[in-house]
Amino acid sequence: MPILASLLALTQAAQPAAPKPPRTPPEIVAAAPASAWAPIPAEDLLVIDYAGGGRTVVQLAPVHVANIRRLATSGYWSGSAIYRVQDNYVAQWGTNDDKKPLPAGVVARPPAEYVRSAAGLAIRPLGFADPYAARVGFAGGWPVAQYKDGSVSLTHCYSMVGVGRDLSPDTGMGGELYAVIGQAPRQLDRNIALVGRVVEGIELMSALPRGSEAMGFYKGPAVARKIAQVRLASALPAAERPAFEVMKETSPSFAAYLDRRANRDDDFYKVAAGGVDICNAPVPVRRVPAR
Amino acid sequence: MPILASLLALTQAAQPAAPKPPRTPPEIVAAAPASAWAPIPAEDLLVIDYAGGGRTVVQLAPVHVANIRRLATSGYWSGSAIYRVQDNYVAQWGTNDDKKPLPAGVVARPPAEYVRSAAGLAIRPLGFADPYAARVGFAGGWPVAQYKDGSVSLTHCYSMVGVGRDLSPDTGMGGELYAVIGQAPRQLDRNIALVGRVVEGIELMSALPRGSEAMGFYKGPAVARKIAQVRLASALPAAERPAFEVMKETSPSFAAYLDRRANRDDDFYKVAAGGVDICNAPVPVRRVPAR
Repeated sequence: MPILASLLALTQAAQPAAPKPPRTPPEIVAAAPASAWAPIPAEDLLVIDYAGGGRTVVQLAPVHVANIRRLATSGYWSGSAIYRVQDNYVAQWGTNDDKKPLPAGVVARPPAEYVRSAAGLAIRPLGFADPYAARVGFAGGWPVAQYKDGSVSLTHCYSMVGVGRDLSPDTGMGGELYAVIGQAPRQLDRNIALVGRVVEGIELMSALPRGSEAMGFYKGPAVARKIAQVRLASALPAAERPAFEVMKETSPSFAAYLDRRANRDDDFYKVAAGGVDICNAPVPVRRVPAR
Repeated sequence: MPILASLLALTQAAQPAAPKPPRTPPEIVAAAPASAWAPIPAEDLLVIDYAGGGRTVVQLAPVHVANIRRLATSGYWSGSAIYRVQDNYVAQWGTNDDKKPLPAGVVARPPAEYVRSAAGLAIRPLGFADPYAARVGFAGGWPVAQYKDGSVSLTHCYSMVGVGRDLSPDTGMGGELYAVIGQAPRQLDRNIALVGRVVEGIELMSALPRGSEAMGFYKGPAVARKIAQVRLASALPAAERPAFEVMKETSPSFAAYLDRRANRDDDFYKVAAGGVDICNAPVPVRRVPAR
């Protein structure tokens, strides 16, 4: 090595490298300041404990969840199960028993809440075209779609949780729930009540063997996974409560995250996409120590 | 029951009901005439047999597959494995050994074939907006995206198969492959060579336990599923060859299928979406008896 180059190399080695600015979506999430995050209330977390171990946690959305909270507090789902797993579609759980008596206060046929008005809702637009809706974006930490008639719905993205129902217009009372485990089935938007999203343990649903019967149902009494109990996190002792934060869509970190989701330029990439699908930019959620 | 109604009921019962026209996408696929289907050549089918049973079949696309055919005919993948399963992303298989000698005729660094020119390619447009590309559609039985510069790529939809590679611009020689098992990671379009799609047995990949290490890799020597052998279907005895057909995108059945994918109006649905994502309208493929 020529001497000058050697000296330069020495000089460079002696100075610690300046920290690289975050470049990939995970790096941006990891670097986001505390101000970019909002806590998820413990009463909005549904904690599903499986028989034999393992846990899935669902964050409830601010719609249609009164029934679900009552079902959880009454112990309705103790001894229930995941009984349907359809590849590239959904994993569904609950009692699979429409004769089971409902706990007090649970409404058997709640009014349909598939959409709400956009009035008064601050939507942070995604900024890219969507094949299903007039526009898509984020509101209150959730992915949403707005339609020509001004109505707004949550979107059926991976890990979103909805209420199983029979034929329209039955809304479903919330006892049978499903999580999306494949390509976003957006045709269900406005047709099923979405009530939340899995924020931890989706792989305990998505990696289950697919059911052998039509629509992924398991055969006869067999189930994919037994559920020991389902509680609201607020019902757990404070020290044992799982706690999560969701990134605010109004934060600069979220703007940077979305930009990198649409324009990957880290070393692996040759061409930046220049756009992103609403379901390929999940709102970041992180686990935090119990409060 | 009033007498008139009873008589009407009797009359109706005595006449066989007129067959209902197919209404859902699966009904349209089931009713499609033979003329709507094109056979997949046996040399375009990669048959993956797992140790311990089970089979996944991949249809090879007409790009970048010379290496893959040679790897299959040489037995390169005997004793390989699925060694990476990342939730909502990919399952990856191969030797996971970049020191393994290449069979004769395999090109170590093939030229990048991420895109081709749209010239001479008949694209049947999907007809709905796409967040990633100028337009999307179907060509030769495959989902494709066309960009502003006129280039065309296959799209990273659920079950599509691509070539694992190191940092750009390494193309990957085809020994390590992956299948998409979650929301379409379209940011990979034009950045990775797509070479096919799983046409049977995707659930033997998508339902595997997720790997515990970064990017879903399995820890140490552990693997998700061992592969006994990988062959082209054309190498199997004729009577044992799995055979498939793909729906022609030029057929009236495909037009009807797409229309119902975008506008579900069967009894479950309250509102038709009025659009569909390219990855939520997979080209129908069906198994047929061995030829």
